[in-house]
Amino acid sequence: MAQRPHVVIVGAGFGGLAATRALRQVNVDVTIVDRNNYHLFQPLLYQVASGLLDPSAIASPVRTIVRRNRNVNVLRAEVTGVDLAKRRVTTSVETLEYDYLVIASGSVTDYFGSEDARQRSTGLKDLSEALSLRSRLLGCFERATLTTDADARRRLLTFAVVGAGPTGVEYSGALGELIKHVLPKDYRSIDFADVSVVLIEAGDRILASFAPRLSRLAAHTLEQKGVRIVLRKSVRSIDDNGIVLDGGERIETHTVVWTAGVRAATPLDMDRDALGRSGRVKVTPSLTIADHPEVFVIGDAAAFEQAGAVIPMLAPVAIQGGKYVGAVIAARLKGESSPAFRYHDKGTMATVGRGAAVAQIGPIHINGLIGWFIWIFVHLLYLVGFRNRALALWSWAWNYVFWDRPVRLIITPSGDR
Amino acid sequence: MAQRPHVVIVGAGFGGLAATRALRQVNVDVTIVDRNNYHLFQPLLYQVASGLLDPSAIASPVRTIVRRNRNVNVLRAEVTGVDLAKRRVTTSVETLEYDYLVIASGSVTDYFGSEDARQRSTGLKDLSEALSLRSRLLGCFERATLTTDADARRRLLTFAVVGAGPTGVEYSGALGELIKHVLPKDYRSIDFADVSVVLIEAGDRILASFAPRLSRLAAHTLEQKGVRIVLRKSVRSIDDNGIVLDGGERIETHTVVWTAGVRAATPLDMDRDALGRSGRVKVTPSLTIADHPEVFVIGDAAAFEQAGAVIPMLAPVAIQGGKYVGAVIAARLKGESSPAFRYHDKGTMATVGRGAAVAQIGPIHINGLIGWFIWIFVHLLYLVGFRNRALALWSWAWNYVFWDRPVRLIITPSGDR
Repeated sequence: MAQRPHVVIVGAGFGGLAATRALRQVNVDVTIVDRNNYHLFQPLLYQVASGLLDPSAIASPVRTIVRRNRNVNVLRAEVTGVDLAKRRVTTSVETLEYDYLVIASGSVTDYFGSEDARQRSTGLKDLSEALSLRSRLLGCFERATLTTDADARRRLLTFAVVGAGPTGVEYSGALGELIKHVLPKDYRSIDFADVSVVLIEAGDRILASFAPRLSRLAAHTLEQKGVRIVLRKSVRSIDDNGIVLDGGERIETHTVVWTAGVRAATPLDMDRDALGRSGRVKVTPSLTIADHPEVFVIGDAAAFEQAGAVIPMLAPVAIQGGKYVGAVIAARLKGESSPAFRYHDKGTMATVGRGAAVAQIGPIHINGLIGWFIWIFVHLLYLVGFRNRALALWSWAWNYVFWDRPVRLIITPSGDR
Repeated sequence: MAQRPHVVIVGAGFGGLAATRALRQVNVDVTIVDRNNYHLFQPLLYQVASGLLDPSAIASPVRTIVRRNRNVNVLRAEVTGVDLAKRRVTTSVETLEYDYLVIASGSVTDYFGSEDARQRSTGLKDLSEALSLRSRLLGCFERATLTTDADARRRLLTFAVVGAGPTGVEYSGALGELIKHVLPKDYRSIDFADVSVVLIEAGDRILASFAPRLSRLAAHTLEQKGVRIVLRKSVRSIDDNGIVLDGGERIETHTVVWTAGVRAATPLDMDRDALGRSGRVKVTPSLTIADHPEVFVIGDAAAFEQAGAVIPMLAPVAIQGGKYVGAVIAARLKGESSPAFRYHDKGTMATVGRGAAVAQIGPIHINGLIGWFIWIFVHLLYLVGFRNRALALWSWAWNYVFWDRPVRLIITPSGDR
């Protein structure tokens, strides 16, 4: 069998899948490696954690997604290292030799070195975290129905979200709605004046990547949903019964959701000065690493500078990077050169709940119901696979009409409460 | 507050929910206790285990189901014991005093005392078992893509189902379809001649509770789906790499599903002679236990004799028992007496896969496509809550049109492969 160039893609997120697709007609063999057997639509993960969507509405098997790409092999494995000199990727199950390597390994929750935060809070980056948050949240309500101690009850019914980027804002908005519109019908013995959601942000406004006016509008919407916003305070410590903020304020709670930061996760063993902010790997204008034109880094994992700034960690960045890398590899096989990568900003958006989102598309700032409809449209467009799209739309319609969040199941394999 | 009689219902299955509903307009306080926060539609559990349905399609929060019953309190707890003399139920979180007790605690997998079977096979009675079966099954396919050893590959791709009652038959039929129609598209590197499903039954035919002709038809349909049926063989031993049957035949496999039997699970501490077959509690014609007219046992947990036979463990039995008990309690509060319980057999059915089911309604025996449509109709009718009904119907339609089983996600919180 004639050896075709072997492209190894690490990660089946937005970037890895886009690269795989871009290589579909190219004369290479592709191996895409991911620790999970599914692609996760991360932007909607908070809706699993708040009981709106089933896991399968935002996750599709990688094998099914790439089914029509005949040159692709899928490997479910943990990538443990990269030997740049020998052009080898080691994984938990086998070692892969590559001609081209695409690192699209995304990012993980950044606890900024705090063991407290790592052990006593839950991130919102993967399905098991989302499911365990959903169970924890509902478990707190169950336990609250049993206690006669008013302080203990309030502590159980206080939910702290640390970090007011899009994930923190979207999740606290979803929690606000769950608490205001859905749970009162199920927990009639609970006084909902005892229930609260606190969103804590170290910066001086929420959604700092948006225009100040949109931040203000989003904050206003969240407050209407009953979310308390605490600005200019970082978390000093977390214990089993609560958190202490800078300045000494203590918030009694059993549930801390950590969305304060993410950092790149790559299997590359790089020098410190080869890494940019958040551990992202500095890349050349062609998205490769220095001295290794055969090694590409894209998406959250890459620190790519454009117009004097590093481009953000967003799905469109990863998708555009994946497409670009596919085209570069195709060109190189033909002996052609490629122009430098260029990110086209399609805008950013965040939803703050039912019928309210903020969107920023170049100079255009949109909020409220129109923003929300744009948000829904764009997210459906991106959701992988028709079934997911239809299911997610169905759930949204249901939720919108009936103010419901139907997936309120506490499923804990270990019997953990 | 005037003390109303307190009815404690143990279990939120078909029986417990039916009793709760029957007591809706009765002047009592009801506490329904279940270890889970959801009611599980067990007859469709095998469809979660085979990747057709999401958990939330067959599970609904108990609180949501009983939302309109103002006299009901829901307690999520493990029932640990019953003190019949003091009329108390002890649970993992608090002790409940009762005036009437309804034991609707259902059944658990019966391994007939085999530690081998308990440790090395998976039952199919709750959501976590169904999810872990789904993950194990797909995990075996993933591992099979990696091995070059032909024996190891065949062992990974052999799935044994022990016990050919409705659950075993329905699950092996679903596995047959998954393997024949869905997985070949995802696992192109696997030779599907290596994949097999073996259904093992100690009796001399499958679906022994049905007429012999329907058993034969079901067996024929299963065999068409590629399921190998082994009759008149019980399992002698199970080890990590396979099972040994009576007579010495060894089947190499990593996946053993145990649907060979169930036994009643009750918190009552009863003498051996107060228990019937499968540990079911012998009950009076009023579904109460001897000397305790205030303690009812219904559904799988009860051994109720009618026409010389103990009535079977089926959802309609539990539902009719629950309704009856509600009526008896209402009558007693008015000082009236009630007639004895009488089970009305509405028929039984089992599906053997896409477009094929057997149904037995009194003297009428139905099979094939018509049986399947009846099966769908009846199951939708019983599914709790409109949303579940619509979602399940959607999944069925999808599956029927596209031969798909869309929920093929491997989600294991522990990272277990």
